Amino acid sequence: MAYRLHYWPTIQGRGEFVRLALEAAGAEYVDVARQSPAKGGVEAALGRSLQDPKNPRASFAPPFLVDGEVVVGQTAAILLYLGSRLGLAGEVDGLWTHQLQLTIADAVAEAHDTHHPISVDAYYEDQRAAALERAKAFREERMPKFLGWFEQILQRNPAGDLHLVGSALTYADLSLFQLVAGLRYAFPKATARVLADTPLVSKLHGNVSRRERVHAYLQSPRRIAFNEEGIFRHYPELDG
Amino acid sequence: MAYRLHYWPTIQGRGEFVRLALEAAGAEYVDVARQSPAKGGVEAALGRSLQDPKNPRASFAPPFLVDGEVVVGQTAAILLYLGSRLGLAGEVDGLWTHQLQLTIADAVAEAHDTHHPISVDAYYEDQRAAALERAKAFREERMPKFLGWFEQILQRNPAGDLHLVGSALTYADLSLFQLVAGLRYAFPKATARVLADTPLVSKLHGNVSRRERVHAYLQSPRRIAFNEEGIFRHYPELDG
Repeated sequence: MAYRLHYWPTIQGRGEFVRLALEAAGAEYVDVARQSPAKGGVEAALGRSLQDPKNPRASFAPPFLVDGEVVVGQTAAILLYLGSRLGLAGEVDGLWTHQLQLTIADAVAEAHDTHHPISVDAYYEDQRAAALERAKAFREERMPKFLGWFEQILQRNPAGDLHLVGSALTYADLSLFQLVAGLRYAFPKATARVLADTPLVSKLHGNVSRRERVHAYLQSPRRIAFNEEGIFRHYPELDG
Repeated sequence: MAYRLHYWPTIQGRGEFVRLALEAAGAEYVDVARQSPAKGGVEAALGRSLQDPKNPRASFAPPFLVDGEVVVGQTAAILLYLGSRLGLAGEVDGLWTHQLQLTIADAVAEAHDTHHPISVDAYYEDQRAAALERAKAFREERMPKFLGWFEQILQRNPAGDLHLVGSALTYADLSLFQLVAGLRYAFPKATARVLADTPLVSKLHGNVSRRERVHAYLQSPRRIAFNEEGIFRHYPELDG
């Protein structure tokens, strides 16, 4: 039976980390909210499902994944669940793969907060002064620290520097690709500078994007373009 | 062999979620950086270990746990690893327990950012204006949303409303206790208001604190007091 992914239909967002794993593995899945209304699509159904008082395990927020009787929320927990099933968790060390994913999640949350440093419930325009400051700290301190750490993980991988875990693709590689893709979109100038100092991260980003299934996915209409409603937003003033 | 927990020696911080699980299970462990220098204690060793180029799996940041050959970083991944070993992961559904933990981690990160909305590398005093705004949004929107969600999880637990998962203690209960304890310390007035609307969360906090091993731990010198170096800081101006 096809996996059913529930996520906002108009942004990549956190759901994209799950979409990439499903696509890279060639797994059968339905992106529920992007279906036609007749098939249960549309955003309203997503909200209703989270609010359903008969759902004892409604996620705090999308995405969540339905696999038969199993319902899992939180991006990293979804990938923990899918990783072993899709052959994307590393041959021997799923826990290390998961640890990398959680660190990517931390970086994603900080990237998001560059444009919403005060409140997720207020407009960017109403917190722009703080955003300018937070984005500066992110570009100058946090982005180099995070990508530098992943560079070091690649350097020290005993199986070679082409993958984060072992010598085959894991969901951590896919997620690092997505993090770099998002940073390049949001902060093109700053990210180019940091990637010049993290060549293995840059190479991994390129390699993942050229994998056959990933490449096909990125060219397809299934891939939502980055936009200013998602996690990674391009506001030129935040790129310094 | 005793577990070895590596974390900053003078704050509860994220390490406290691990300490609580070890203490509640009565597990043998060494809080390495709090040992005497002769036994390998002190903060400097913590930094050296993270920077060690021979360590291929150095965490991005503390805490990390060493169990023989296994080294695990990221609080939620440590608890995932320990949960099944300590009998704290829920009888049947470790993934759900983990999902709850990840949501607690999100709430903890947001609580931290109330006093550091611009940069973790700058002083609170230098970002106080933004902190006042962010703390207001946290008190009025995010804290009720997070604790309200946990209230709903307790209400809907088919095994009863005393635990988040099933009918026995899990690390998610311990972590929710710690989240509430931290919020009560940092925002006493706002948290009292929110807890009045989330009586099951409030009851869980009290019940966990009275468990024999947890109570003994909380009274012991092993429990570091909350202070203004940690995640949960009491700056009265941020409590509205």
